[in-house]
Amino acid sequence: MSTSLEFLIESLRRLPGVGPKSAQRMAFHLLQHDREGAAQLSRALYQAVDTVHHCAKCNTFSDIEICELCADPERDHTLLCVVETPADQIMIEQTLTWRGLYFVLMGRLSPLDGIGPRDLALDKLVNRATDGLVGEVVLATNFTNEGEATAHYISEMLKARGLKVSRLARGVPVGGELEYVDAGTIARAMLDRRSA
Amino acid sequence: MSTSLEFLIESLRRLPGVGPKSAQRMAFHLLQHDREGAAQLSRALYQAVDTVHHCAKCNTFSDIEICELCADPERDHTLLCVVETPADQIMIEQTLTWRGLYFVLMGRLSPLDGIGPRDLALDKLVNRATDGLVGEVVLATNFTNEGEATAHYISEMLKARGLKVSRLARGVPVGGELEYVDAGTIARAMLDRRSA
Repeated sequence: MSTSLEFLIESLRRLPGVGPKSAQRMAFHLLQHDREGAAQLSRALYQAVDTVHHCAKCNTFSDIEICELCADPERDHTLLCVVETPADQIMIEQTLTWRGLYFVLMGRLSPLDGIGPRDLALDKLVNRATDGLVGEVVLATNFTNEGEATAHYISEMLKARGLKVSRLARGVPVGGELEYVDAGTIARAMLDRRSA
Repeated sequence: MSTSLEFLIESLRRLPGVGPKSAQRMAFHLLQHDREGAAQLSRALYQAVDTVHHCAKCNTFSDIEICELCADPERDHTLLCVVETPADQIMIEQTLTWRGLYFVLMGRLSPLDGIGPRDLALDKLVNRATDGLVGEVVLATNFTNEGEATAHYISEMLKARGLKVSRLARGVPVGGELEYVDAGTIARAMLDRRSA
C-alpha cells in the first residue's frame, strides 16, 4: 500500500476511539471523496497546536492570555464554578443559570490512572480562588467516584483557606420516574430532601 | 471558546462517522494529552493529499505511477480481480489465495446515491482488461444489491469484448450452521451445489 496512506491511517489512530478499521475507512473517504476536507483538517490541527493555550485565569483552552469569559465585566467575579472539562463548562453555560466565572481542571483525580493532585492545575486553582474577589466556589465535577473524590479534595483544600465551598445538588433528574431511577439516587434525594 | 479550537472541532467533523460530541472529545484529547499526535496527523494529512494518486494500472491509491503490486513480475498477469475498495483488496490479499492482479473500482454502482457507470473508472477497467495479457476477470464486488448490480454490469461489458468473466462463489460461510444461515444464502448454495 502507499506509504503516505499507511502513515495517514497510522496517524488517524491517534484520535481517541478510532481503531484500525475506522482509521482505514476515514483515510479512504478523505482521499476519495473529500481531499479539501483533509487539507482543511491538516491546517486546523496545525493552527490549534500552534495557538491554543490555557487561559491564565480559568485554565480552559484559549487563543489569548485571558479568555473572553474571564475578561467579561458583566459576569459576577465573586462566584467561581469548578468543572472537569471545557465540555462540562459548555453544558453549564447552556443552562443560562450561572452568572459567575469558571475554573477548568482539565481532568479529575484518578489514582487508578496515575492522575494525582500534582497532575491537575490545583495550585493554579488555589491562586485563582484566593484572589480576594472570589467569595464562593461551586464544585461541579462529575458525580462519578473520581469526580466526587476530586470535589472532596478541592473542598478540603479551599475550606482550609477560609472560602465558602458548595457542590451541585444531587437528586432525581427532571422527568425522572422513581420506578426507573437507581436506588442510590433515590437514597441521596431522600437524605437531601428540602421543605416544599 | 477559542477560535482555533472551534475550527478544529468543525474540521474533525469532516471525518466520516464523527458527530459534534466526538469531534469535541477528539479535539480536547489531542490538545490536552497528545499535541504531538495532532501535529503528526496534520503532517500525514498534508502529505497524503499531496502525494497519494491512483495507480495507472489498477486504480488503487498509490504514491507512484504504477503500484508495487502491479509492477510485481511474480504475479500472474493473465488474471484480474475486480474489487470495490482498497479495503476489499487487502482482505483478499490476506487470504493468500490470489496470485493475479487487481482492479479497484473505488466505489460501486448505486443509482440511489447518484453513482452511475460514469462515476466509476469503468473505461479504465476496459482498457486494463483488454491489454492482451488478461485472460480471466474475477468479479469480487460485494454481495449486496449494489455490488451484485455492479458485477452484472461489468460482466456484460467485458464478455462483449470476448473476455472470460467469473464471480466469487456464493454459499454457506465456513463454520456456518444451517439453522442460523439466512434462507437466501441456503437457496443460493443449493442452486450452486457442486459434486462432492
